Amino acid sequence: MARYVQKFGGTSVGSIERIRAVADKVAGFRAAGHDIVVVLSAMSGETNRLVALGNEISPRPDPREMDVLQASGEQVTIALLAMALKDRGHPARSYLGHQVPIVTNDAHMRARVERIDTERLAADLSAGVVPVIAGFQGVDPGGDVTTLGRGGSDTTAVAVAVALGVDECQIYTDVDGVYTADPRIVENAARLASVTFEEMLELASLGSKVLHPRSVEFAGKYGVSLRVLSSFEDGPGTLITTEEHKMENPVVAGIAYSRDEAKITMVGVPDVPGVASKILGPIGIANIDVDMIVQNVGADGLTDFTFTVKRSDYEQAKELLESVRTSLGARQLTGDNKIVKVSVVGVGMRSHAGVAKTMFDALAAESINIQMISTSEIKISVVIAERYLELGVRAIHSAFGLSTEPRAE
Amino acid sequence: MARYVQKFGGTSVGSIERIRAVADKVAGFRAAGHDIVVVLSAMSGETNRLVALGNEISPRPDPREMDVLQASGEQVTIALLAMALKDRGHPARSYLGHQVPIVTNDAHMRARVERIDTERLAADLSAGVVPVIAGFQGVDPGGDVTTLGRGGSDTTAVAVAVALGVDECQIYTDVDGVYTADPRIVENAARLASVTFEEMLELASLGSKVLHPRSVEFAGKYGVSLRVLSSFEDGPGTLITTEEHKMENPVVAGIAYSRDEAKITMVGVPDVPGVASKILGPIGIANIDVDMIVQNVGADGLTDFTFTVKRSDYEQAKELLESVRTSLGARQLTGDNKIVKVSVVGVGMRSHAGVAKTMFDALAAESINIQMISTSEIKISVVIAERYLELGVRAIHSAFGLSTEPRAE
Repeated sequence: MARYVQKFGGTSVGSIERIRAVADKVAGFRAAGHDIVVVLSAMSGETNRLVALGNEISPRPDPREMDVLQASGEQVTIALLAMALKDRGHPARSYLGHQVPIVTNDAHMRARVERIDTERLAADLSAGVVPVIAGFQGVDPGGDVTTLGRGGSDTTAVAVAVALGVDECQIYTDVDGVYTADPRIVENAARLASVTFEEMLELASLGSKVLHPRSVEFAGKYGVSLRVLSSFEDGPGTLITTEEHKMENPVVAGIAYSRDEAKITMVGVPDVPGVASKILGPIGIANIDVDMIVQNVGADGLTDFTFTVKRSDYEQAKELLESVRTSLGARQLTGDNKIVKVSVVGVGMRSHAGVAKTMFDALAAESINIQMISTSEIKISVVIAERYLELGVRAIHSAFGLSTEPRAE
Repeated sequence: MARYVQKFGGTSVGSIERIRAVADKVAGFRAAGHDIVVVLSAMSGETNRLVALGNEISPRPDPREMDVLQASGEQVTIALLAMALKDRGHPARSYLGHQVPIVTNDAHMRARVERIDTERLAADLSAGVVPVIAGFQGVDPGGDVTTLGRGGSDTTAVAVAVALGVDECQIYTDVDGVYTADPRIVENAARLASVTFEEMLELASLGSKVLHPRSVEFAGKYGVSLRVLSSFEDGPGTLITTEEHKMENPVVAGIAYSRDEAKITMVGVPDVPGVASKILGPIGIANIDVDMIVQNVGADGLTDFTFTVKRSDYEQAKELLESVRTSLGARQLTGDNKIVKVSVVGVGMRSHAGVAKTMFDALAAESINIQMISTSEIKISVVIAERYLELGVRAIHSAFGLSTEPRAE
């Protein structure tokens, strides 16, 4: 008998049929003697519909009211699931953010969880009642509705899991776990039985859409075991846990990629101190996130300064830098928004040399030119032309033998 | 400068365009220096959609969860209107039932308002902020979401008006006031400048759909002036107020009708004490409402006992009475669900004889047979065959000269 928080995302509760299936699944766990707390998202598409209404009525929708608007989505799914659970003979009770309460700060549309009262939840569990909590929403100290921003329901699930000290926080999605690479690109990608929080964080940040980085970071910080499972099929999923729990880590856990990349190069900048800050200063002021930065000094005392931004920020960043180029006396401003980032992630890298060589060799064998390189303790990222994305990911996946030697269960 | 509660129904907030129109209207009142509290319904059709979801997932949806489900509808409209008001330069703030709070008892799906805290609302008004309150919903002492049942948003508006002691509670609908008869039937029906609470209560109960009887009763009890206006056209609407406020009442205010009628007759019952209770007992136990009751004793010591019920209860009521018929030794059980009730309403009736004669004469002149008659202090109702409904209403309307002599403004 264990105690679980189970979170079901938008596609898992996207219709009456699917909510019934979730009720059956939860009822199964209850029948097996487990204590369950459920956290739900809104029906798939509903949050987008509500946000569209807000954007339709106002050019700059008030954040406080956007939160009231958006929070109505989860209210529907929790009520429906609680009804379905009761019909299956399992007492259940829906909770809105303010009813738990899940207390956040007052930063509307991106609130941070500050405190969760577990009194009512614990009483429900003792009484055999399944609490069904609205994800994504909270209440600020003044009693206003708040929402947690992107990935908010995952964050709610982890926060509740931390507050209650449960055995595992289970995130049910439309995939059956975390894979060594995107199965849509790499046919023989293998499901990972487990990854570390650090690996998952890199995989999540690098474009693997399974879990939001914020919830992974949160879970890692408090040491709550996370498990990603499919809502639609049975299976063990992927356990995300601390490194110490595992016997031995293979060198590489998986390959991630991101298409949301563009690069900008200031060509022929005089190589004097302060150049980098003059270039990146206006970018930072405009709230544009910079990811990779590379600077090469040539023999002529001139340097090429290159950095990457999100594609949606590309045009604005280039415009901002035109005047900087003139004042710096740089030769040219160039850019490319048809690039992608491909990354190899694994905690085993720390103690294994040669990972970079294997990766670069694999790309070279396919004649794929590496445009930029960036590394961290557990990750190596390269920028390549977008047209080589699939080819490159498959080559690297194969070079590390990920399809043939999946990590042991 | 006055202080108003303004309630807008589902069709008035049925689309972004219409919510914008409501914002324009409220902004106009604010610009004229009035203090406004807004109460809103859900977008037209939304509550029905939510109820349908509940009924789809569960054969007997849990009432507590139905309230959570349904309350999400108003949450959307209040957020959108508050955004639109702010865009027009008028500070506004949405309030859910629990945020005001509007405290009710715990009778889910038909909760009664027990108390409204006016502290936040009064502070908003003092600060020039427009509170935008979700109608239909409240919170019970345990913190659970409740809803007020049919006509709930009107009830919210009146309750807020009572609590704040405003000058007038304005109910904006898709009609521009209360008419002497249904304009779809009587072409030259006239808008009433005013009616008394008693008259409105009879008109509302008898099938005029403009206001829910409960809100009229509530307003009358606390002496809050109600006004019915159109959301879509300018105009004075109809003021519903206490009798004392008016100089003189005409004999008849208007003609109401109800199609939701069916009658059942127990024919040839031995006329002994206790017959009525034996017939109506099982009807009451089955929670079937009985409206009109007529009993005639014939010369043979047998009586015919007739009563009316809602059409939806007709078949069940007849079935229930089959066994009663046998035990009473009654000759026959007959019924008719193609009947309607037509009523003449007016507080002036109290002091004017001859109203019944005028009504009956008008029907007789059209050869319309009166099947049942029921009277109260300010109303005379008759049951006639459904096929004569329009003819009968027009004849009575004309006989009382309602189209040519509308009540003075």
